[in-house]
Amino acid sequence: MRHKGSHRRSDLDEVLRGGFLCHLGVVVDGAPMVVPTVYGVDGDWLYVHGSVASRSLVQAPGAVVCVSVTQVDGLVLARSVFEHGVNYRSTMIYGVPRLVTEPEEKLRGLRALTEQSAPGQWEYVRRPSRKELAATALVAVGLGEASVKIASGPPDDGDGPDAGLGLWAGVLPVETRFGAPEADPLLPAGIEPPAHIAERAGRVLGR
Amino acid sequence: MRHKGSHRRSDLDEVLRGGFLCHLGVVVDGAPMVVPTVYGVDGDWLYVHGSVASRSLVQAPGAVVCVSVTQVDGLVLARSVFEHGVNYRSTMIYGVPRLVTEPEEKLRGLRALTEQSAPGQWEYVRRPSRKELAATALVAVGLGEASVKIASGPPDDGDGPDAGLGLWAGVLPVETRFGAPEADPLLPAGIEPPAHIAERAGRVLGR
Repeated sequence: MRHKGSHRRSDLDEVLRGGFLCHLGVVVDGAPMVVPTVYGVDGDWLYVHGSVASRSLVQAPGAVVCVSVTQVDGLVLARSVFEHGVNYRSTMIYGVPRLVTEPEEKLRGLRALTEQSAPGQWEYVRRPSRKELAATALVAVGLGEASVKIASGPPDDGDGPDAGLGLWAGVLPVETRFGAPEADPLLPAGIEPPAHIAERAGRVLGR
Repeated sequence: MRHKGSHRRSDLDEVLRGGFLCHLGVVVDGAPMVVPTVYGVDGDWLYVHGSVASRSLVQAPGAVVCVSVTQVDGLVLARSVFEHGVNYRSTMIYGVPRLVTEPEEKLRGLRALTEQSAPGQWEYVRRPSRKELAATALVAVGLGEASVKIASGPPDDGDGPDAGLGLWAGVLPVETRFGAPEADPLLPAGIEPPAHIAERAGRVLGR
């Protein structure tokens, strides 16, 4: 089976762990709008910054949004154009966004956002002041209505008539990795990246 | 300037060249739906498979869709949580999708889709038969209404009060690369990956 659908929480968690960027879909003036934004997960909630989601919240309280998270694992290179495809893990999460107003949940949500891409960073840097916290719009979307799709494995036509063409077929893997940290040019000499950042260099996202 | 907006075609082309996966937003039953799918570019048109877009086409002919393409370049690790961000290049393309019916344009569109992720593959593998072509729904979205956003550079707080905290700050680069080709387990021995595939191993997407 190249394609698998799932509603299991463990599959959802695996997809969400594998990245930090989602594509948030809202309806604005009747048209779809899809914006890339970072996300974080805490318990049964996915958190995103509210700048875009809140447009939808203001325009249409109670309107559903769609959050899509996708990790590409490889190109599926078959013997025919028709059988080409992509190996990926993705999730679509539907929910009515909830504006986070309670300061403690806001901190938890921002912590989740920060730790999603850079674990350890929340403890290392200066946390939001009361003023910054008030200036930050944060939105929560429940993880209850999420579906997961996973496509994996080699092309399907290895035992079909096209196998006789004598062409190479297989998968060209795709991997997203962190590189070596690049210091802010304004950083004074002698301040090295902390361990939780330095150790990420060369590592695949989410692992 | 960390953030830059653009409507220049050259910036659009650069973003589109850097990937092969888009997030397509359509409105279904009044709710947004965001699905990952591969794209290709030919002239002033972006092509995507029609399976999702055509739902929108059938439900609401003349309805606008939104295509979002995003490449992440790095995590911006500032001295405070508030100043954290992401370096990225992204585009949002709005358009009324057009179902491609003319066989020659369909072939051009499929060629663009195939070559977007694996240049050289169109010439190498078996092209679509008349039957396969008829079974493929392809949709074109014009590139006329596209906006580009680019965020780049180090964090902003290198000359602010937080610079005195003595914390490391900078960018943790993110790169998406192709790996070494993995042969289909059903591939007979002795068939090596063609040059246009083998040479992609280790290369950054879109370069």
